[in-house]
Amino acid sequence: MIIVLKNDDQTTIAELQQHFGNTNDVFVHNNRVAVQGITAADLSDSERVAAVELIDSVPKAVQGSREFHPEDTVIKTKHSIIGGDNFTMMAGPCSVESEEHVMKMAAVAKANGSTILRGGAYKPRTSPYSFQGLGEDGLKFLRKAADQYNMDVLTEVMDDEHVKLVAKYTDIFQIGARNMQNFSLLKAVGKTNIPVMLKRGMSATVDDILNASEYIAAGGNHNIMIAERGIRTFDNKYTRNTLDVGVVPVLQKLTHYPVIIDPSHASGHTEFVTPLALAGVAAGASGLVVEIHDDPAHALSDGPQALKPNEFKELSDKAFAIRELLTEMPQEQAEAGR
Amino acid sequence: MIIVLKNDDQTTIAELQQHFGNTNDVFVHNNRVAVQGITAADLSDSERVAAVELIDSVPKAVQGSREFHPEDTVIKTKHSIIGGDNFTMMAGPCSVESEEHVMKMAAVAKANGSTILRGGAYKPRTSPYSFQGLGEDGLKFLRKAADQYNMDVLTEVMDDEHVKLVAKYTDIFQIGARNMQNFSLLKAVGKTNIPVMLKRGMSATVDDILNASEYIAAGGNHNIMIAERGIRTFDNKYTRNTLDVGVVPVLQKLTHYPVIIDPSHASGHTEFVTPLALAGVAAGASGLVVEIHDDPAHALSDGPQALKPNEFKELSDKAFAIRELLTEMPQEQAEAGR
Amino acid sequence: MIIVLKNDDQTTIAELQQHFGNTNDVFVHNNRVAVQGITAADLSDSERVAAVELIDSVPKAVQGSREFHPEDTVIKTKHSIIGGDNFTMMAGPCSVESEEHVMKMAAVAKANGSTILRGGAYKPRTSPYSFQGLGEDGLKFLRKAADQYNMDVLTEVMDDEHVKLVAKYTDIFQIGARNMQNFSLLKAVGKTNIPVMLKRGMSATVDDILNASEYIAAGGNHNIMIAERGIRTFDNKYTRNTLDVGVVPVLQKLTHYPVIIDPSHASGHTEFVTPLALAGVAAGASGLVVEIHDDPAHALSDGPQALKPNEFKELSDKAFAIRELLTEMPQEQAEAGR
Amino acid sequence: MIIVLKNDDQTTIAELQQHFGNTNDVFVHNNRVAVQGITAADLSDSERVAAVELIDSVPKAVQGSREFHPEDTVIKTKHSIIGGDNFTMMAGPCSVESEEHVMKMAAVAKANGSTILRGGAYKPRTSPYSFQGLGEDGLKFLRKAADQYNMDVLTEVMDDEHVKLVAKYTDIFQIGARNMQNFSLLKAVGKTNIPVMLKRGMSATVDDILNASEYIAAGGNHNIMIAERGIRTFDNKYTRNTLDVGVVPVLQKLTHYPVIIDPSHASGHTEFVTPLALAGVAAGASGLVVEIHDDPAHALSDGPQALKPNEFKELSDKAFAIRELLTEMPQEQAEAGR
Repeated sequence: MIIVLKNDDQTTIAELQQHFGNTNDVFVHNNRVAVQGITAADLSDSERVAAVELIDSVPKAVQGSREFHPEDTVIKTKHSIIGGDNFTMMAGPCSVESEEHVMKMAAVAKANGSTILRGGAYKPRTSPYSFQGLGEDGLKFLRKAADQYNMDVLTEVMDDEHVKLVAKYTDIFQIGARNMQNFSLLKAVGKTNIPVMLKRGMSATVDDILNASEYIAAGGNHNIMIAERGIRTFDNKYTRNTLDVGVVPVLQKLTHYPVIIDPSHASGHTEFVTPLALAGVAAGASGLVVEIHDDPAHALSDGPQALKPNEFKELSDKAFAIRELLTEMPQEQAEAGR
Repeated sequence: MIIVLKNDDQTTIAELQQHFGNTNDVFVHNNRVAVQGITAADLSDSERVAAVELIDSVPKAVQGSREFHPEDTVIKTKHSIIGGDNFTMMAGPCSVESEEHVMKMAAVAKANGSTILRGGAYKPRTSPYSFQGLGEDGLKFLRKAADQYNMDVLTEVMDDEHVKLVAKYTDIFQIGARNMQNFSLLKAVGKTNIPVMLKRGMSATVDDILNASEYIAAGGNHNIMIAERGIRTFDNKYTRNTLDVGVVPVLQKLTHYPVIIDPSHASGHTEFVTPLALAGVAAGASGLVVEIHDDPAHALSDGPQALKPNEFKELSDKAFAIRELLTEMPQEQAEAGR
Repeated sequence: MIIVLKNDDQTTIAELQQHFGNTNDVFVHNNRVAVQGITAADLSDSERVAAVELIDSVPKAVQGSREFHPEDTVIKTKHSIIGGDNFTMMAGPCSVESEEHVMKMAAVAKANGSTILRGGAYKPRTSPYSFQGLGEDGLKFLRKAADQYNMDVLTEVMDDEHVKLVAKYTDIFQIGARNMQNFSLLKAVGKTNIPVMLKRGMSATVDDILNASEYIAAGGNHNIMIAERGIRTFDNKYTRNTLDVGVVPVLQKLTHYPVIIDPSHASGHTEFVTPLALAGVAAGASGLVVEIHDDPAHALSDGPQALKPNEFKELSDKAFAIRELLTEMPQEQAEAGR
Repeated sequence: MIIVLKNDDQTTIAELQQHFGNTNDVFVHNNRVAVQGITAADLSDSERVAAVELIDSVPKAVQGSREFHPEDTVIKTKHSIIGGDNFTMMAGPCSVESEEHVMKMAAVAKANGSTILRGGAYKPRTSPYSFQGLGEDGLKFLRKAADQYNMDVLTEVMDDEHVKLVAKYTDIFQIGARNMQNFSLLKAVGKTNIPVMLKRGMSATVDDILNASEYIAAGGNHNIMIAERGIRTFDNKYTRNTLDVGVVPVLQKLTHYPVIIDPSHASGHTEFVTPLALAGVAAGASGLVVEIHDDPAHALSDGPQALKPNEFKELSDKAFAIRELLTEMPQEQAEAGR
């Protein structure tokens, strides 16, 4: 149950915490107090009187919910603002391949509106015999390239033991799709104050995503964004996964975290990346994360889905144009959608 | 195998037809001759010499393929042009409920850019005890409303026995998702010259769709468009189906038929219809087919997914704006995509 | 709502029919009366008094439900008894290929315990250019072979127009997976008194199957069996479909119709057919329908999944042995399962 | 490529290791040498001559493949033999709830043929606010109960940091479905010599499972079994997941590791657990892992799917009976299946 109080009612907040804090999970956000496992009947008379509104049914992932936190989460890093009315472009190579290469890709990313440089130093490859990433060297090259171009770093952390190490170099943690329910890892990044991009697992339901995000929030880290990167369906002959573009408005209704689209993994083939990216923007995503490479045929991983610089330019130009167009048009739907 | 000839080489076309026509399926489109089940070795010397290009591996659904028919199919009805560079809006109630009501909805559809009026007179309802449609009366009301507003009619035909009857009233047949592999019905509409909107089955792969369309083409009817209306996946808690927006560029690469998005059935809930529709437009769809209702709460079917007139206006304004924007921007991707 | 009456209470049954029959769907099975769309409050005092039990929430597919019809449906054909404690083997070639061939296959089927001969005369092929079946000739050969070996015929009917023709030759209609929601066809076979094997659609939910079966029952034909033949999932690299063996006990709980397993289409590869068949038997299926061929490499359709005679013998021996074993062991679970 | 040599040809084995060991992955199993990334053309004349057989196309997960390791892996623990012709029953509570309770459940498990006691001390719960397990205390109780009844312990390890701790108490590690692609964890258990039960991820393809198992094998631990516990499909209304029973023969064809069925998580509801378990046995599984509880309504986790002692007795009696029956019957299929 969520008890909505007057904005300045610190007294009742304190009372509720004292009343329920020992036996139940209690969360406070501004004038909203969520107490799990109670009903209106459990409230004292004074608590009931103080309530402006009582919201009965609350999802388990309460801290991530709109009911508890109605306004959008806006994440601020050194060079980027993610969420709310902002639109954020993130790009870079799948794997960091060398200092020189990631530097070159950073230049391309920045020139086309990206403020965040993505790149993998630790790679969760399906086979143990595939290239596993450059490790800490990769992180160093990534950091250097980002600094050179005044960008933030986004890179994957694959296990709780690496959180400390990766934290030294990155501005945003990426949790990969295969680790979306690696709860030890979620808890570990939840204890940091570094923003987290949580990628949806290949067969994760919307509720699964929200519950996974709650593992991070439960540790005190609320700088979370959620990335849709395609799901597993019965057909993967022509695209690697199926982009579930509908999850953008669905998540925006249910949670306050920014929703990002990864068109590269969803598509798996260069030629479909841009249409998927634009679909995500038109559906209202807060940003895109795109794989780019100047020589996809020789990329160390995921070459077939990496856009060349000129292709990325087109994607970026169109993405920003659609976003701008939609921002300027009247927003009837917003009422219904929330 | 497809044999590409010089544009005016009627002689070799005739030769190929005579050579293979008795034993193999032979299809001719302009200067392209598709002969199924042969290899280059089966050609005569003169045939080989006459060929500008030989295309070896050809999908079973050859008449629908880009290899056989490189240019876009453009379908012309009395009031609409569908495919190619055109963008077509289609709207109307899920079911035709009464003459008055469909007339009202036609006005709304037309006022917001629709040239095609959709509406169901025969309804494929999951349960035999649900409203099954008004039947021929529904067709009459639909026809009258469309004529009143200078629109075309799009309505579902559910079985081969009804093809003749529905043909009297409609400008475009709709084949519903549940009937996508009702081959008797596909053959029946394939023998008419009325355009067909073939809706993707809930678990139909891309190849399944193309093969289904070929049943229509095999009868001689090439005025086909394909509609994506959401597929079945592991999560349907918040949306009725999962819109596979990636199928738009995939189909556009593989086939010349226009691809239409039905955001209403994909979403199942009003609040998500517009984002899905815009995603479809941004991905490059040739049109939208949208369910509208002035009083969704009392609709005889599918009320929860019907847009109200003001909501439809917003969808329509934004859809046309995105389409126009993309049409005006340079098209790097097109090369890669084809 | 279902009103359960005393066994001989014809008076109240008549009263209920008169009371609700003009406005609601009313179904009677023995001493059970289902009235759709009412609650206990709608009953008269005498009706309420007469009721032994009131069952509130009833699925839309009421005639197929266990609540309405608690005892198993047992279907009797000339040579077979299907459902209840019986176990029925059905086998034959995918397509009827010639009189001689189907005769040979009938001999194999019969020698290994089959009382029903399956075979396709009209084939719903994915591509219009694939072999479409022998048509009425195929039906004649099938009938002759079955008669020769004292077996029943099971064959697919693909559209409502063919129902009359196929009815002349078959003992059981098969409705194929692609036609599971071809409602016109379901209605047509529902008007006959020939038993129907309804195959689950590739992405049909359990509720979809039950609703489809209700289209048949609504016409008055209650001799229905349901066949699971594999569903579409994210992995079809090694098997053509995924056998949902769990649907056997699920359907047995929800409906009184016999549940049959088709291991051939589920597997798609000979080597996996027997394990899938045995899994189905162990899960409690009332029968199996298996494709056999003496020369699979040259079968006109679906060769890769057809068992050779010696392989079918092994399947059959083991299937009957498992069934017998389970029949003889005590049945704790039955209570819980119903 | 796999080079099959004569059984005692240590010379060529050494030659191959020297020839390719510095540049390629080389694996040796008895008289088979797998060298990744080469073709027959890369072999020296003497190597080619020494080869009894050359197997060209080899899956990435080579150490787990039948091509490389034709005979079944048989895993021996103190009290159990898993794989080959053996059938192993594993049972226990979902979570270890108390010393007394796990002791009681161990007695029930043992009395019904189980040689392995399962139980969770660290629980990967969807929500961070659900019961997360007793931790090390749970491990101690589990160990004590297993020792009391001469059983082995099977328990989940959730992250690489816990591997050492859990190793102190368990005989078999369980890797949960959500962690199937937690590569850090797979590598960590791969460095131990404790057997591992790897559970299939909810949307993991067969190739994904095999590749995940290879991460363990790459570390030197070959005592691996694979458990099917149900996958995500479009229908989960009546069962929690869909048991993919066909994966049993498919995996047995592709890999030498034992395949285990977990009917409890697949079903999610007590009433369907036994049919699913029996289906798994009939399909040829090497064992079952079943959740039991004497008071499911008050279980700390997964109560709805836990069998009561008398229900488990029925499952166990029938499972052993089917296994015995099939072992005694002739095995035509085995040839085809391998």
